Amino acid sequence: MPASPRIALLLIGNELLSGRTLDKNMAFVGSTLVERGLRLSEARVVPDSAEVIISTLNALRAQYDQVFTTGGIGPTHDDITAQCVADAFGAPLERNAEAVAILEAFYGERLNEARLRMANIPCGARLIPNPVSAAPGFTLENVHVMAGVPKIMQAMFLHEVAELGEGPKQLFRNLRVNLPEGDFAPALAAIQAEYPDVEIGSYPYMNGPELGANLVFRATEATILQRATEATVTQLRALGASAIDET
Amino acid sequence: MPASPRIALLLIGNELLSGRTLDKNMAFVGSTLVERGLRLSEARVVPDSAEVIISTLNALRAQYDQVFTTGGIGPTHDDITAQCVADAFGAPLERNAEAVAILEAFYGERLNEARLRMANIPCGARLIPNPVSAAPGFTLENVHVMAGVPKIMQAMFLHEVAELGEGPKQLFRNLRVNLPEGDFAPALAAIQAEYPDVEIGSYPYMNGPELGANLVFRATEATILQRATEATVTQLRALGASAIDET
Repeated sequence: MPASPRIALLLIGNELLSGRTLDKNMAFVGSTLVERGLRLSEARVVPDSAEVIISTLNALRAQYDQVFTTGGIGPTHDDITAQCVADAFGAPLERNAEAVAILEAFYGERLNEARLRMANIPCGARLIPNPVSAAPGFTLENVHVMAGVPKIMQAMFLHEVAELGEGPKQLFRNLRVNLPEGDFAPALAAIQAEYPDVEIGSYPYMNGPELGANLVFRATEATILQRATEATVTQLRALGASAIDET
Repeated sequence: MPASPRIALLLIGNELLSGRTLDKNMAFVGSTLVERGLRLSEARVVPDSAEVIISTLNALRAQYDQVFTTGGIGPTHDDITAQCVADAFGAPLERNAEAVAILEAFYGERLNEARLRMANIPCGARLIPNPVSAAPGFTLENVHVMAGVPKIMQAMFLHEVAELGEGPKQLFRNLRVNLPEGDFAPALAAIQAEYPDVEIGSYPYMNGPELGANLVFRATEATILQRATEATVTQLRALGASAIDET
């Protein structure tokens, strides 16, 4: 079995960095990959600046097996991703006949020059279907260029992720415990040391005055996962946890 | 007036990349900077891997004036950020007497060795107060290390951002229009060309079957901002928009 591909995500848009828009695409991409036994290795968020997009894209596509981008492929003046991808690859940006046909079928007489800009695709790319609003994304070598609108991005990502294969399925257990991390950290560290094949994460929460933690156990073997989780529950009870919920 | 500092954000945590946790810290940092006339230039999200954290931190601190990090400074085994920062700077990680005193005052007899780990701070750093749960963040040169829990991160960021000064205040106008972008893209591009000192962003939305866009106008001069916005409203009405709402 080949090793799982190393995957990066590039989120493009001033509105993400200004806090105007709360990104939800990273969480969708990350959780979808996990469901398929794959992982997101890194994400970057950059502004609508051609120079930054091009240099970041070139760094990521050299470092990772697959790179997904979101945002900047609409019809307005601030949509510059397609041109940046073309420039990053040194490929000409061309009016793509297949994309023009898709837009003609969808828009009919509402097709105008602004919308036709969305058919400008780097030479050599293949299109990614957009079942929501027609204007396609595209893939050039290991770079997959998707829309930023979540509903469209999700359809495009699910289309592309099918090509990546699947990794060894990870199994999960999640525990929510009403003890502050400092109360159980040594016990949990000991369990982590005893079960090196289980990846244990601890994420503190605050619920009003209550401090607690969400514990995530991740492994490929069900038996080992079960043992590590049970050992933790036993320890947490001994330390005085009054609520341990499987979530 | 010195140029505004270039600022980057490094979000650390497997749970962000797996989609288990939806990050809200980037939006807080971004919008707080905007309120102060500053900008977030780039954000990166990396897993709980020492190698990746160290190399990313070294890249960012060389490239940007200020780097803020979130996550990984708690008491559990997967909290490795302080050690990584120490390693990135080649500084020893030491038990910080001031941090020990803070933890002693807060925890009293509940202070244990796990919690004392949170007083291990790179040599030469100054502490960032944590008014919520005591365990401090720290600043070493241009790197500000903050907690990942939003309420704590926010307090730490507000403390640190006060040191950065303020940039020229940006003024905003936001319009929500119920026309698809392709209908007004050429008109908006013409307005952008006419008002180069106004930064105009267009962010499409889907509300059921309705396609529309949120337009953001940003400038430092109120008169110019007003003119660009009014010109846009006139154009959008002419193009058939039936709802243009200031948001």
